[in-house]
Amino acid sequence: MSTVRIRPRVLALLFSVALATPALAQTDPLPSWNDGAAKKAIVEFVQATTAQGDPKFVPPAERIAVFDQDGTTWVEQPMYSQVMYCLERVPALVKAKPELKDVEPFKTVLSGNREALAKLTMPDLEKILAATLTGMSVEQFGAQVKDWLATAKHPRFKRPYTELVYQPMLEVMKLFRANGYKTYFVTGGGQDFVRVYSEQVYGIPPEQVVGSAGGTRFGYDKAGRPMLTKEPKLLLNDDKAGKPEGIHLIIGQRPVAAFGNSIGDKQMLEYTQAGDGARLMVLLHHDDGTREFAYGAKSKVGTFPDTLMAQAQKQGWVVISMKNDWKRIFAFE
Amino acid sequence: MSTVRIRPRVLALLFSVALATPALAQTDPLPSWNDGAAKKAIVEFVQATTAQGDPKFVPPAERIAVFDQDGTTWVEQPMYSQVMYCLERVPALVKAKPELKDVEPFKTVLSGNREALAKLTMPDLEKILAATLTGMSVEQFGAQVKDWLATAKHPRFKRPYTELVYQPMLEVMKLFRANGYKTYFVTGGGQDFVRVYSEQVYGIPPEQVVGSAGGTRFGYDKAGRPMLTKEPKLLLNDDKAGKPEGIHLIIGQRPVAAFGNSIGDKQMLEYTQAGDGARLMVLLHHDDGTREFAYGAKSKVGTFPDTLMAQAQKQGWVVISMKNDWKRIFAFE
Repeated sequence: MSTVRIRPRVLALLFSVALATPALAQTDPLPSWNDGAAKKAIVEFVQATTAQGDPKFVPPAERIAVFDQDGTTWVEQPMYSQVMYCLERVPALVKAKPELKDVEPFKTVLSGNREALAKLTMPDLEKILAATLTGMSVEQFGAQVKDWLATAKHPRFKRPYTELVYQPMLEVMKLFRANGYKTYFVTGGGQDFVRVYSEQVYGIPPEQVVGSAGGTRFGYDKAGRPMLTKEPKLLLNDDKAGKPEGIHLIIGQRPVAAFGNSIGDKQMLEYTQAGDGARLMVLLHHDDGTREFAYGAKSKVGTFPDTLMAQAQKQGWVVISMKNDWKRIFAFE
Repeated sequence: MSTVRIRPRVLALLFSVALATPALAQTDPLPSWNDGAAKKAIVEFVQATTAQGDPKFVPPAERIAVFDQDGTTWVEQPMYSQVMYCLERVPALVKAKPELKDVEPFKTVLSGNREALAKLTMPDLEKILAATLTGMSVEQFGAQVKDWLATAKHPRFKRPYTELVYQPMLEVMKLFRANGYKTYFVTGGGQDFVRVYSEQVYGIPPEQVVGSAGGTRFGYDKAGRPMLTKEPKLLLNDDKAGKPEGIHLIIGQRPVAAFGNSIGDKQMLEYTQAGDGARLMVLLHHDDGTREFAYGAKSKVGTFPDTLMAQAQKQGWVVISMKNDWKRIFAFE
């Protein structure tokens, strides 16, 4: 990392403190949102928890807001971007290791045969993930991901994945940061994968990304230079119960606000809610098949089952309707 | 955590940026240090890496400085504080579980017999650590550590452990933070243990503590409230090669400055040095048996062997002589 980067968070903090007046009062902090219960709940939570003297006030050191990534801050259909990365990385892998050319599951991936691809089993996928995510230095991996991000395109939107970010959620992250919150990703995706672009795309620095994490092994290269090699050993499966466990491991504090979009975020929302004082739990509901994808409650995909909607209603979690609450979804619209 | 805490780092950052002149020019940032090569190297590194246009300039987002804890920022002799905690926790443990009263190694610990205690084996110690560090909720553990810190006294200095902090190192941490660095602990001690007091004692918030870490298990208590239970499963042994591995896991960025005091910090210093641009590697040498303890190079204890001193000299690491470089060691002197 050799370029000059100024953290938006730091600037925003300086700005908001220097003025000593909340930016909220002046302009709409969430311009891509329609007025409604979800927008109101989010804005009021930030106002109340940062107003000195408010019973909901949260001290600056405890202002932690966590965000799931896939499906919460960017598109996760038809496939997680990282899985797409692993599949599209196979040709380069085989070029470097030609002996894999006729070995399954790599042979099937190379064939590009969609029907055969759809039949890959979980063990097949694990082999592909292990081969494309481990065995190299952490720097080599970062460079490979950067290369892919620069050229890969989403199959439906025909745009780079890093443009398929939900503009309304970027606004929410900025609103939290402008009010002294640290924003963290807590993603089932790979920590090392998300850290490559999280600062540039979301304003979230590498040290504020909690994700599924494999081990690394410290050693020395042929020239005697110290290096870390990515190992095929899972340290943290940052999904479901793994999300609060990962939050404790990496952050060590319970968040006061949490945003998710699926059953994989349930435990993170429950854990957030179980703390003292003001709490905000939010679920994004994918109900807009025209502008994005509809795979929420009552759909067949099942990452947002009816039981989750029932729990949200019972426990007072905010549910965002993508269709009704968002004026626009992407910055390019 | 219900009290109001303002992070010193944030205030310092605001202050330094608002003035737009380095605080260094006005007053001595390291008043507890004697003038000498070590002080000069530290002050000049901070000045050079934060001066726009300097060839050593480090962008704010990459300003990460890591500190070992035991023996680098507070006293580690005659025993790590956390080991002392585990031993002194045994009476309360046996009170809660009377069936352990006549079971070894708890029986020996309860006896207080120093000779018998000195003969405890590593498996004995592991049993004591597992019994006192796991099995409870993360909140219960935090409360137990807080209770102990409030009453425990160091056997030689007869003061709370949290007062046995090296004032010169507190000044170094403040100097880094005042210049936009994030200061992290990278300690062999338990992450959950150090996080209890790191902000109050050192100004380092919980999320900036990397340490040895056990797993936790998400579940629900009898009332159905979500909770995390500390498990006897080691996820990260944050010592030696585990230090750069832990840095990658929790921080995800290579530090530009690293402070240690023993062979356990060797790989962290090597990993720090192997990055591009300006780097600062520092070892604290315990050579002051009068004011603290002398157990450095040429002593029999061996946590700072002659080979480490030779490596420091060869690779240009700064070595602090506690005896010669520090005017005073503790704030209470």
